[in-house]
Amino acid sequence: MKKITGIPASNGIAMAKVYHLIEPDLTYDQTNTNNPYDEVHRLNDALHVTKEDLQAIRTHTENTLGIEHAEIFSAHLLVLEDPEFIKQIKDKITEDHLSAEAALDEVSKFFMNLFENMDNEYMRERAADIKDVSKRVMAHLLGVTLPNPALINEEVIVVAHDLTPSHTAQLNRKYVKGFATNIGGKTSHSAIMARSLEIPAVVGTKEITALTKQGDCLIIDGNNGQVIINPSNELKEIYKEKQIAFKKQKQIWSTLKNEQSISKDGIQVELAANIGSPDDVRAVLENGGEGIGLYRTEFLFMGKSTLPSEDEQYKAYKTVLEAMNGKPVIVRTLDIGGDKEIDYLQLPEEMNPFLGFRAIRFCLENEHIFRPQLRALLRASVHGNLKIMFPMVAALEEFRQAKGILLEEKNALQDEGVIVSPSIEVGIMVEIPSTAVLAKQFAKEVDFFSIGTNDLIQYTMAADRMNERVAYLYQPYHPAILNLVHQVIEAAHNEGKWVGMCGEMAEDPLAIPLLLGLGLDEFSMSASSILPARSQIRDLSKADMEIVAHDALAMGTAEEVVSLIKSKLK
Amino acid sequence: MKKITGIPASNGIAMAKVYHLIEPDLTYDQTNTNNPYDEVHRLNDALHVTKEDLQAIRTHTENTLGIEHAEIFSAHLLVLEDPEFIKQIKDKITEDHLSAEAALDEVSKFFMNLFENMDNEYMRERAADIKDVSKRVMAHLLGVTLPNPALINEEVIVVAHDLTPSHTAQLNRKYVKGFATNIGGKTSHSAIMARSLEIPAVVGTKEITALTKQGDCLIIDGNNGQVIINPSNELKEIYKEKQIAFKKQKQIWSTLKNEQSISKDGIQVELAANIGSPDDVRAVLENGGEGIGLYRTEFLFMGKSTLPSEDEQYKAYKTVLEAMNGKPVIVRTLDIGGDKEIDYLQLPEEMNPFLGFRAIRFCLENEHIFRPQLRALLRASVHGNLKIMFPMVAALEEFRQAKGILLEEKNALQDEGVIVSPSIEVGIMVEIPSTAVLAKQFAKEVDFFSIGTNDLIQYTMAADRMNERVAYLYQPYHPAILNLVHQVIEAAHNEGKWVGMCGEMAEDPLAIPLLLGLGLDEFSMSASSILPARSQIRDLSKADMEIVAHDALAMGTAEEVVSLIKSKLK
Repeated sequence: MKKITGIPASNGIAMAKVYHLIEPDLTYDQTNTNNPYDEVHRLNDALHVTKEDLQAIRTHTENTLGIEHAEIFSAHLLVLEDPEFIKQIKDKITEDHLSAEAALDEVSKFFMNLFENMDNEYMRERAADIKDVSKRVMAHLLGVTLPNPALINEEVIVVAHDLTPSHTAQLNRKYVKGFATNIGGKTSHSAIMARSLEIPAVVGTKEITALTKQGDCLIIDGNNGQVIINPSNELKEIYKEKQIAFKKQKQIWSTLKNEQSISKDGIQVELAANIGSPDDVRAVLENGGEGIGLYRTEFLFMGKSTLPSEDEQYKAYKTVLEAMNGKPVIVRTLDIGGDKEIDYLQLPEEMNPFLGFRAIRFCLENEHIFRPQLRALLRASVHGNLKIMFPMVAALEEFRQAKGILLEEKNALQDEGVIVSPSIEVGIMVEIPSTAVLAKQFAKEVDFFSIGTNDLIQYTMAADRMNERVAYLYQPYHPAILNLVHQVIEAAHNEGKWVGMCGEMAEDPLAIPLLLGLGLDEFSMSASSILPARSQIRDLSKADMEIVAHDALAMGTAEEVVSLIKSKLK
Repeated sequence: MKKITGIPASNGIAMAKVYHLIEPDLTYDQTNTNNPYDEVHRLNDALHVTKEDLQAIRTHTENTLGIEHAEIFSAHLLVLEDPEFIKQIKDKITEDHLSAEAALDEVSKFFMNLFENMDNEYMRERAADIKDVSKRVMAHLLGVTLPNPALINEEVIVVAHDLTPSHTAQLNRKYVKGFATNIGGKTSHSAIMARSLEIPAVVGTKEITALTKQGDCLIIDGNNGQVIINPSNELKEIYKEKQIAFKKQKQIWSTLKNEQSISKDGIQVELAANIGSPDDVRAVLENGGEGIGLYRTEFLFMGKSTLPSEDEQYKAYKTVLEAMNGKPVIVRTLDIGGDKEIDYLQLPEEMNPFLGFRAIRFCLENEHIFRPQLRALLRASVHGNLKIMFPMVAALEEFRQAKGILLEEKNALQDEGVIVSPSIEVGIMVEIPSTAVLAKQFAKEVDFFSIGTNDLIQYTMAADRMNERVAYLYQPYHPAILNLVHQVIEAAHNEGKWVGMCGEMAEDPLAIPLLLGLGLDEFSMSASSILPARSQIRDLSKADMEIVAHDALAMGTAEEVVSLIKSKLK
């Protein structure tokens, strides 16, 4: 038995077998051969076993997830049976005396390169198929085992160095009870994905992959970051009870689905959700979300080879607005650059991308991308309660210019006879220190603010939140951050405007009391955090929290602030 | 005749011939040959002419700059005469039928690589010699001309895409009357170097290299950024008069050398200088500097292969303290990382180095580097008026930890019987937004603040100051920056502490009136800016500037602030 602690990234408790989602080393030493016939024989064997694998995976996937999900494996089988592909590999072995590994590697790279450079999107996708198939054959040649997450058919906790979007897409969600990873923090992909799947997760454990092996028993406690490897029976019992208690807690929370988000002393706030696509709306409604506080539109632009059309965007925005049925939906205009790249836009390489050409900076210089998005939003506005928000605004001129373009497109649409909602609020993200400091002046011109704490913290502390060496400076409770949040809220309220928050801080149980005390109007978070937050807020007195927040603002360090909150929440 | 405008980077007017410091393209097409004997012949010719070049340069350098500066060229001649080096190149031609260019390239790369990986520092330096010599031979083979800045023997204005430290080291300062570059801003190396040499410079012209050719006549006006290529006789006369007027102006300024830096209404401030080495002190005293506001110690650590010893540091600090003869000297502890790399420390590559592991963050994790610097400073403290300043402080804990280490070393030295000054002030740079926002709490613990505007602006605006695409956001007059400066000064004064500024903003004639109005106590700048600043301050009324500053704080954009100052300075 061994206990380690990581970063709690999604709440709940899971107990299951370890499933190691670890890519094995597929490098090979032998590049030439003196026995080409042996090599061809080895290749034939590997091709044969790979074919059996793929057929089994296809059948399994068809039975568990449906025929649609299994199609990809039919495509892979086609590659494996392609006579030209196989012939070229064998030629390399018999004619150039390459080893089976080197021949496979060369030929698959040749075809991948060929397909990747084709104009036809369908053909480009074939490059990924070849890559996947050749990886499987290579693994058999080298005698190593590839993880097959699609084959998972029992309850597991997925253990990985990190989880990428392509990993999580392959997971059979029915059996995956939790995630534990070596790296990452509360804002990394694995953490966000776990909260969206509503399964417990502990990230940033540093060594979970090294400390576990396939099939070990694992407990993860996503409420406090505890991970227990091969627990004693006694501990298993304790955690089973904790699991039951947590389930009960969830049941209690679920009774709050249609209740108001109102403090003990009668102050009402709005609890909204952050979403990335129309598919996410269902979970928001199921969790009693009172609105969408942040719709990240960049996912419409990612994972494809061209810009989405105005109509394509219009449909997505309309779907979300209609599904939310009159509840507020804040759409953030395109926020790319920094760590979010889009291949087909060919953004320049930058020395400090987080301090670079991104979001509104990019959109104001690329009106051919910005204007269709604004048109799509304006057209969709009649289908619900739309609010538009510009990201990364650092100077008032940028807001004025963006709003000017919006008004031009509105007038143009109206001239074309298109009906546009007359009451669209237009606001900004407050995620750059200058904008927080100058909130008083901004508040005169914007309709609302939404504080993006993830970026605001990293710029205010001058510490890249992805850089482990300075991670200790990423401090949401730092009094400087609280003072900026306070300034923004004061400035907005003085002008009769409202303030939301859409960073991870808005769902943090230690931060919520402070934010309530500071007067935050809207909290936007993962759908799964809404009910616990509502439960917490209903137990808090805003008047009491005002006093706590006031004390926190005068403190010198994040540590003092955390001690203060903990002492008040007892 | 053609006029263009760039960024004025160092004041004064220069008129001289263009000297193009542009590295030619040394790539070659021909890699093989059918006539090896012709190629050997071509190589011999190139070697011969290169030898003549080097001998001429050596003699010229010896005559103009002295024998010490000429030694490097003797080393280059030794490489050129190395029989093993020459033999290997010829073998590649005759045996492998490579072209002379390809043979030279391969063999010099082989030797450079060999030497670079040796343990011996002397041998590693030989790699640079081989690189330089092979570049000269290659240029002769390709029939292109290399710039030889060491050979400049008439008055010129150096025109370059950008100037690197290695370029400026080779320049014969006697003849260089000014710089004009395509890229760069007020804080780039070329600009800082020009101010330190007290010659006019215009940077960021975008196209000066393309618009000029060697020998063109050029006027640069470093006061307003004007550049005139091949001016008419009429314009030449006008600029000669301007030159005379500027010289007169400088003479008037020089009468202020021993005067006080005092406003019209009797408020005294301190005008100090930023320096990088003990050699810079002379210029500070000649320009009437009242102190050193920033001694950048990283230059002690750069351009060498190992850490400087405690004694080496002690000597440098002592030299500066003694030369300043009781005037305050603020030494900033090691500020590396970001754009300042030190090879032998092997700092990790970072995605956003400006938001990374640098300065105090690095020192607190590397006490074996930090402690000897602090000991050297403490030992030197008895030789003058030393103040110690920590860079990049983002959180109070960092200051407390750094000061704790300083006190430990002080006690240790005193236990060893070493005398340490009892009155060393210990302060911090304010260059991270969190520290400016939290100045009230910091002011209780530090002895002074020095605002580093170069970094403070880039973090507050979230815009890399080196990135041309977001350069428009690097706005010193942005009201958010002014509000932060205001907050810092208020907080310090309330605790009876003083505030300096050591960024480029402190010497900007448009910013000085605002900073005076905001109550800044110390302005630290290039030595050459001190007298103009003193002249300006003596003409300003602080009471009037307080009103201007107050109005600026309430504005919405940098543009409005600039208009306001310009209207008030008329």
